[in-house]
Amino acid sequence: MGFDPDSTVFRVHEGGKLVLRSKMPLADRESLSLAYTPGVAEVCSAIAEDESLARRYTWRSRLVAVVSDGTAVLGLGNIGPAAALPVMEGKAALFSEFAGINAVPIVLGTTDPDEIVETVVRIAPSFGGINLEDISAPRCFEVEAQLRDRLDIPVFHDDQHGTAIVVLAALRNAATVTGRTLSDLRVVVSGAGAAGVACTKILLAAGIGDIAVADSRGILHGGRHGLTAVKEEIARTTNKAGHAGSMDDALDGADVFLGVSAGAVGEDSVARMANDSIIFALANPNPEVDPEIAHRHAAVVATGRSDYPNQINNVLAFPGVFAGAFDAGARAITERMKLAAAAALGDVVADALAPDRIVPTPFDTRVAPAVAAAVAAQARADDVALTLSP
Amino acid sequence: MGFDPDSTVFRVHEGGKLVLRSKMPLADRESLSLAYTPGVAEVCSAIAEDESLARRYTWRSRLVAVVSDGTAVLGLGNIGPAAALPVMEGKAALFSEFAGINAVPIVLGTTDPDEIVETVVRIAPSFGGINLEDISAPRCFEVEAQLRDRLDIPVFHDDQHGTAIVVLAALRNAATVTGRTLSDLRVVVSGAGAAGVACTKILLAAGIGDIAVADSRGILHGGRHGLTAVKEEIARTTNKAGHAGSMDDALDGADVFLGVSAGAVGEDSVARMANDSIIFALANPNPEVDPEIAHRHAAVVATGRSDYPNQINNVLAFPGVFAGAFDAGARAITERMKLAAAAALGDVVADALAPDRIVPTPFDTRVAPAVAAAVAAQARADDVALTLSP
Repeated sequence: MGFDPDSTVFRVHEGGKLVLRSKMPLADRESLSLAYTPGVAEVCSAIAEDESLARRYTWRSRLVAVVSDGTAVLGLGNIGPAAALPVMEGKAALFSEFAGINAVPIVLGTTDPDEIVETVVRIAPSFGGINLEDISAPRCFEVEAQLRDRLDIPVFHDDQHGTAIVVLAALRNAATVTGRTLSDLRVVVSGAGAAGVACTKILLAAGIGDIAVADSRGILHGGRHGLTAVKEEIARTTNKAGHAGSMDDALDGADVFLGVSAGAVGEDSVARMANDSIIFALANPNPEVDPEIAHRHAAVVATGRSDYPNQINNVLAFPGVFAGAFDAGARAITERMKLAAAAALGDVVADALAPDRIVPTPFDTRVAPAVAAAVAAQARADDVALTLSP
Repeated sequence: MGFDPDSTVFRVHEGGKLVLRSKMPLADRESLSLAYTPGVAEVCSAIAEDESLARRYTWRSRLVAVVSDGTAVLGLGNIGPAAALPVMEGKAALFSEFAGINAVPIVLGTTDPDEIVETVVRIAPSFGGINLEDISAPRCFEVEAQLRDRLDIPVFHDDQHGTAIVVLAALRNAATVTGRTLSDLRVVVSGAGAAGVACTKILLAAGIGDIAVADSRGILHGGRHGLTAVKEEIARTTNKAGHAGSMDDALDGADVFLGVSAGAVGEDSVARMANDSIIFALANPNPEVDPEIAHRHAAVVATGRSDYPNQINNVLAFPGVFAGAFDAGARAITERMKLAAAAALGDVVADALAPDRIVPTPFDTRVAPAVAAAVAAQARADDVALTLSP
């Protein structure tokens, strides 16, 4: 398509997509002396004496940094920080529109994991939460783990956990709609990057029957050499059936195909899956399985696309997850908070489940409040919530 | 005064002072697919191919990072990043209200100059300009110099250059109103921190007659030992009269007292200044010379306070300086751009000069556009402006 300044998409992006404003007008001496000097000094002094007051008297308690190094942007790959910025602005806009949360894009001029961590730690006093975005695997795992360790505010890699939460919600509802439970399902995951790893972990935590994960070289299993630490862990904790060949072999009789890799899967392979199979082909814009082909063989089909039903879209998760974490004053986002988010998300459509309605649409306004309430309740139960100042 | 949640100033600060929003609503599939996936990928791809398009299609071209380490906040000193945040939010609010510029507070969890520089360099791809704020001297000089060297976007330490621009504008008008020119004036500066150093340099560049600078140990001169590099440079380039004693000695017969230090000056010293003297006592909230005492002896008096005439307030400078730099696509803020800003600021009240009107009020809406136009024109003349994309 290329650069066409007259096209709608470029016109929409002219000047960027975000605007930052003062909550009160500052057009007279009195407002200026309250919001700025000399009045502000009282607030600064109070926080200097009791830092917990920053939660109440600054914007950071509901402020997310959307952090990316631009190495794994959409399907475009490593396009660098400047080219990644429009995506991060879009993400920040979604935080605002879907949960009333302020979010600032921070794109980084480094791709070194230690430098990314160091930089985010140093700017962290400005923010209430860190949303990592479009950082390539396996660096994203290390960056997230280090930041979770070093910061006492929520850290969430959306490409991992946002996807995982929505997939879990959708898969549980797909199981229900086909008369099964998660523990009945044998799943094949195509892709062992950020999303594949996180989906696998959350499905294991949720009690999936069995799950086999494939990267471009085939199924991960204990006998494979040269695996990264993360893939080794996946090989160790998955694949009860002991598959050691290609993904196509594993698909034979499988209940679920979960594609998070963009690798195309042919009709032959899909046709060999179990009856009432479930196909989530999430690659954008080209699903791993053509939706028409998928529908010929599967009972439930989901994609990442907005022009088909059952859109698996992270916007169903991250606004509510951060809103809930902020509401509870959570210092982290625990595994159980993610499971609670998935349960609440799935429940939104529980009374009207159908094969083409296993998740709410992105514009269902019940979603963010429901997810937020569940996440906040779980944060309090997990004791990661701060005691609020009176 | 302490922490009183029911007071107006704390109520105004509840939840912070800033709000960040999407410029367009994202409540339907079409807008979402334009501002986010899949549409945004076209914009990302275009920028990946030609990074100069980021200027046009992201918000960063008019986005300032307000960066502080919290070491020299107002008169409160080293109160840390969390307690500094309300000031940085206020500053960001002023950028928005006075020049329609987006600005994000970035408070840092480090006070090491090299770490500050490294951190700002790494997040710089997110921003169009860097406004340094409330970083203590002499570290602020090093941080600014390194950042100016390493970044190709405007870097401006407001405590230095904002103050210097407004002081120069005010002093030139004060000279006019008392029938003199800058070259007639002998100035004594009290304070050799960020503001004192920058004011001294801009007054030298503007052709001041003579200027002597005092720190807490007295006048800076070539014979003093143990000076920092910055103070050594000041000692070398000032003090033609060769003062070597206390500031009080230097005030004898001086035309101008410029206080940027909070050190109180007694009536005896002020009384020994030249006829038609000019007193700028800028410490907040307590001016170095009590305004009533100052008026007994001086022809023109200015303070930093909003409840007296002639308020020397940085808000007269920084919004227009950044607006002008952004308008021109400037890659730096040069000395001549600062001089142009001062000239334009002083000119706003040139046709109605009076001893109690040597600068516009902070709410004079002519100021920011006038300063911006002058700064942009000088940027183009200095060839620091980018060639704009068509």
